[in-house]
Amino acid sequence: MHRSSFAALASIALLCVSAPTLAKDDLLETLAQKGVITMEEYEKLKAQRKSEVTATTDEGFKITSGDGAASVQVGTLQQLDFAHYNEDTAELADGTELRRSRLSLQGTFFTDWQYRVEYEFAGTTGVTDAYVTYSGLKPLTVTVGQFKQPFGMEALAADKNVTFMERGLPFYFITTRAPGVMVGTSRSNWSANVGLFGEPVANAQAGDEGYGAVGRVSFAPLMDADRFIHMGLATTWRKPTDENSTNLLGPKFTTVRFRARPESNILAQRLVDTGEIVGVDQYRLEGLEFAAQHGAATLQSEYHLVQVKRDAGSTLNFSGWYAQVAYTLTGEARPYRGDKGFFDAIKPARRFGKDGWGAFEVAARLSGIDLSDDDVTGGRERNAALGVNWYLNPLLRVSANFVKVLEVKGGAFDGDEPTIYELRMQLAL
Amino acid sequence: MHRSSFAALASIALLCVSAPTLAKDDLLETLAQKGVITMEEYEKLKAQRKSEVTATTDEGFKITSGDGAASVQVGTLQQLDFAHYNEDTAELADGTELRRSRLSLQGTFFTDWQYRVEYEFAGTTGVTDAYVTYSGLKPLTVTVGQFKQPFGMEALAADKNVTFMERGLPFYFITTRAPGVMVGTSRSNWSANVGLFGEPVANAQAGDEGYGAVGRVSFAPLMDADRFIHMGLATTWRKPTDENSTNLLGPKFTTVRFRARPESNILAQRLVDTGEIVGVDQYRLEGLEFAAQHGAATLQSEYHLVQVKRDAGSTLNFSGWYAQVAYTLTGEARPYRGDKGFFDAIKPARRFGKDGWGAFEVAARLSGIDLSDDDVTGGRERNAALGVNWYLNPLLRVSANFVKVLEVKGGAFDGDEPTIYELRMQLAL
Amino acid sequence: MHRSSFAALASIALLCVSAPTLAKDDLLETLAQKGVITMEEYEKLKAQRKSEVTATTDEGFKITSGDGAASVQVGTLQQLDFAHYNEDTAELADGTELRRSRLSLQGTFFTDWQYRVEYEFAGTTGVTDAYVTYSGLKPLTVTVGQFKQPFGMEALAADKNVTFMERGLPFYFITTRAPGVMVGTSRSNWSANVGLFGEPVANAQAGDEGYGAVGRVSFAPLMDADRFIHMGLATTWRKPTDENSTNLLGPKFTTVRFRARPESNILAQRLVDTGEIVGVDQYRLEGLEFAAQHGAATLQSEYHLVQVKRDAGSTLNFSGWYAQVAYTLTGEARPYRGDKGFFDAIKPARRFGKDGWGAFEVAARLSGIDLSDDDVTGGRERNAALGVNWYLNPLLRVSANFVKVLEVKGGAFDGDEPTIYELRMQLAL
Repeated sequence: MHRSSFAALASIALLCVSAPTLAKDDLLETLAQKGVITMEEYEKLKAQRKSEVTATTDEGFKITSGDGAASVQVGTLQQLDFAHYNEDTAELADGTELRRSRLSLQGTFFTDWQYRVEYEFAGTTGVTDAYVTYSGLKPLTVTVGQFKQPFGMEALAADKNVTFMERGLPFYFITTRAPGVMVGTSRSNWSANVGLFGEPVANAQAGDEGYGAVGRVSFAPLMDADRFIHMGLATTWRKPTDENSTNLLGPKFTTVRFRARPESNILAQRLVDTGEIVGVDQYRLEGLEFAAQHGAATLQSEYHLVQVKRDAGSTLNFSGWYAQVAYTLTGEARPYRGDKGFFDAIKPARRFGKDGWGAFEVAARLSGIDLSDDDVTGGRERNAALGVNWYLNPLLRVSANFVKVLEVKGGAFDGDEPTIYELRMQLAL
Repeated sequence: MHRSSFAALASIALLCVSAPTLAKDDLLETLAQKGVITMEEYEKLKAQRKSEVTATTDEGFKITSGDGAASVQVGTLQQLDFAHYNEDTAELADGTELRRSRLSLQGTFFTDWQYRVEYEFAGTTGVTDAYVTYSGLKPLTVTVGQFKQPFGMEALAADKNVTFMERGLPFYFITTRAPGVMVGTSRSNWSANVGLFGEPVANAQAGDEGYGAVGRVSFAPLMDADRFIHMGLATTWRKPTDENSTNLLGPKFTTVRFRARPESNILAQRLVDTGEIVGVDQYRLEGLEFAAQHGAATLQSEYHLVQVKRDAGSTLNFSGWYAQVAYTLTGEARPYRGDKGFFDAIKPARRFGKDGWGAFEVAARLSGIDLSDDDVTGGRERNAALGVNWYLNPLLRVSANFVKVLEVKGGAFDGDEPTIYELRMQLAL
Repeated sequence: MHRSSFAALASIALLCVSAPTLAKDDLLETLAQKGVITMEEYEKLKAQRKSEVTATTDEGFKITSGDGAASVQVGTLQQLDFAHYNEDTAELADGTELRRSRLSLQGTFFTDWQYRVEYEFAGTTGVTDAYVTYSGLKPLTVTVGQFKQPFGMEALAADKNVTFMERGLPFYFITTRAPGVMVGTSRSNWSANVGLFGEPVANAQAGDEGYGAVGRVSFAPLMDADRFIHMGLATTWRKPTDENSTNLLGPKFTTVRFRARPESNILAQRLVDTGEIVGVDQYRLEGLEFAAQHGAATLQSEYHLVQVKRDAGSTLNFSGWYAQVAYTLTGEARPYRGDKGFFDAIKPARRFGKDGWGAFEVAARLSGIDLSDDDVTGGRERNAALGVNWYLNPLLRVSANFVKVLEVKGGAFDGDEPTIYELRMQLAL
């Protein structure tokens, strides 16, 4: 028998045994199977793969080391907005803005460590995400750094993935990202997270920094191939920053302020605004979430309640809510992350310019916020919004939003009810 | 006949047929040609290439997916300047500065989409480029985002590629980058682009944002291997930002301002400056370009004319021009992009420290600007400049510039004619 | 003889000759050795490697071109701090901060050129490093750009690698990074560098920019496998920025100011501070370094002396010093760079979550600074500090520091001696 033929047979015999471990077949494997290289050579060369690099381009450009233990992805998010305001009373400045312009670096190291660093270059510039997650203590994950506090399914959804250009009115109660420590656990259809957080790193402070605790659970009692029901519950307790250092002789005081833009970001005005509420001891924020999906149709809603306990005077109650429906005309279902308790991005089944026009989604939302209680007259607002999203491909999205301010009652903008037309071009790499 | 020899022959036969598609020969191809792997295996393995990565290092570090459909290039531009001023009247501050310090991310996705994101960390920090170009509607390209408005061959040339350290005096009329939409088309020796643009994203605004339309055509009637003639024509119509919101009771007004540093950036002074011209209705900017090259010698010149139409009072006319000649002592021709209508970077034929000293270029320029008309006395300025560029390799360049302010007539700096010595070290990766 | 067997033998014969150049054995080599491909094919395919990419993950994610002549590494440094102050007199603000949040790009091009660009996004944002080093003029290296001036072994050690969370009190005399040119040379156990530097690029300036010369030599008379002795000497001469332009009618003057935080960065207060010293002609800064290591134990100490020569009045003398000992409980020696004259990062022998708990280091430091001389009463301060470092893996480090201000004598904070508790989580990729 010819020697190389024998080697080939021997290799094949070996391969039959070790076949399950050779899942991803490639040149090395092909050559081993043909006996061109021996199994020892195969193993040796495979081990050297550690320094080889693969790139996947499904979502951005991810580079992974040969052993899969380390990866890096340089990403960017660009949102260019245009808004036209049909003014009612106040003059609102039409125009363009880069709503978000971000660079990020994320990936894995030593298999169990995930990192993400992201910087914002538009609007309020600086660090958005800067954290490390350790997943080596299964079923727990531990996250340290600045990242999103676990509160609200719309707040937690990635900025590039929310249905409307701006989140609904109650979102403005939430401080999304803060430095802290979070412990979490999850299965495919539920998640639970608790964390301790300081003040966002960008916040200046004169006195001792504020801090708080946040907890959230999400649960999907029904989760089928084409439908699910989501329920979520979250709570925040927070002690605001102590501002006494700025006035050493005066009384100690801490402040909180809640205010909301009318679901549009180019104008400067907030139609409802509590102003600085002084003498705050602490405050709580509670959140309820309900969402459901059937095929291409989704329903999503949240209710937020804030209770501000003051050193003197009554406890103040503010609240907000929204409910929205969305329908993908081209049939794609909005992916739901049962292990996170929020929605992911719609992936168009066809791509514009290749095999179709991409995906189209229409959505409608009602929302309200009430910032008036007792001696604080921040105002009440209700909005209606319609939106169309065009997903040209997994990286590009164009959105058109129409927002009608239905009612503003109380506060400095009492009765000022403009109409808003907004357009966005988004690149998320 | 030996089986593997047969396979080899069969493969070669197949390869003869499919040879044109196997242009880039490599290991896979070699093995297929030798019959070590079959054509089926070859095709299968080639298809798996999608996740493989190649890097080219000719201009920075570009990483491309195996199928060529996606790429990413992380780049940086660093310009460290030193300037010494032989003062005339005003005291000018000698010193160093990082003129530009940028990070960029650019590349391709889904074959037809090009993106570029760039951030500036020196001087006026923030977003420079943030755009996506779609080239799938041949012969048209569509660009959306913030990018350079199509005006002026020197303004459009990359900041790293212009002959002198600072562009000539008339350049200061141009707002280079703004958010907008542009449609273009081109062939090897001509280009045409039209766009609609808002205000640069970094500009604060109180009232409705300004906007404008820009168009440019470039044409090279002669374009040989070692010589060409370039002609260009561009026009901008612009409605400035409406500032009325800042003064609700006062009259509505919009302003424009033109001013120019003396082709040096470290000093704070602008020797000519119209100040804020109030009550502007709209303005137009016209540009004429002429350039020619014969071997290592190039001539480049532009003329700009601004017409500011005011709500009351006469229309104001300002203008500027420059003409420059450059010669590469080491013989390299400055590459001309006929499909873009501007110059690219000189590539040194030899590299410093390897096979030579790099490339050397000398250049001379005359330029002028006139910002005085009617009741506006911004001043007139004429400059002469000499420059030497040393291209050590494709990524590194050292420049020395000498600028003599020949004349300043009118305005706050009337008769102040300093002499400028400038030095730059540039890394463009 | 079978033709392919002959080729194989021929190849092996060739390989025996050229073996030393084929150090890194791989698939190509294996195939060549087996005669599957000819040596010509091998050489040709090897040459094509230029566009191939390898990634190493020992320190971050480094991508290298096939010929090794070019590389790029995208890195990040994140330090999230928490501090609690046991106040004495002044109120000090407890809280969290991102101490450093950086992105960097570094690598090699054309073999002999090294570049590094780094941006800071926390605290004082902007450019930190932006330089190119040319190592093609052996034994000399030439560095141009903004980078660390060669002064002080603790100042020169990377921000991620210093033993305590903040460098000792005398460090505050040093302007670390500035734009300039440096020439250096080194062997395995000594280094010498001299440079000319302007003012840091972030510094605003009204008059002519300050400049200075810096020189440093380091020498390790003993350098064994497990112990060494380090000695260093450095000097800076500096002419401060000329501020006269801000007050054209008043006298010309230049100023310097020295001040120090108490080895903690979250609080705003500097307990010692000379204030702006006016009428400075020039100043000198001298530095002495001594360090030693025996196995897991290290000793490190520095002394700095400043002499400020004024236009009128006496020369002012300020000084500072620190001495610290560190011991790695898990036995790892802190690597010493004899060719640089400073310490590198401890590499844990075991990794947390894989084969152990990482590395643990304990350290103690005494430090002092004296900013009072003649008519300037900046104050004197002495501190004691204890620290624990936990190196979970080569990329992650947790530090806990305790700093006791032993004495503050003179100045605005006379007798104010707080106690500081600090915590840091560091990711350095």
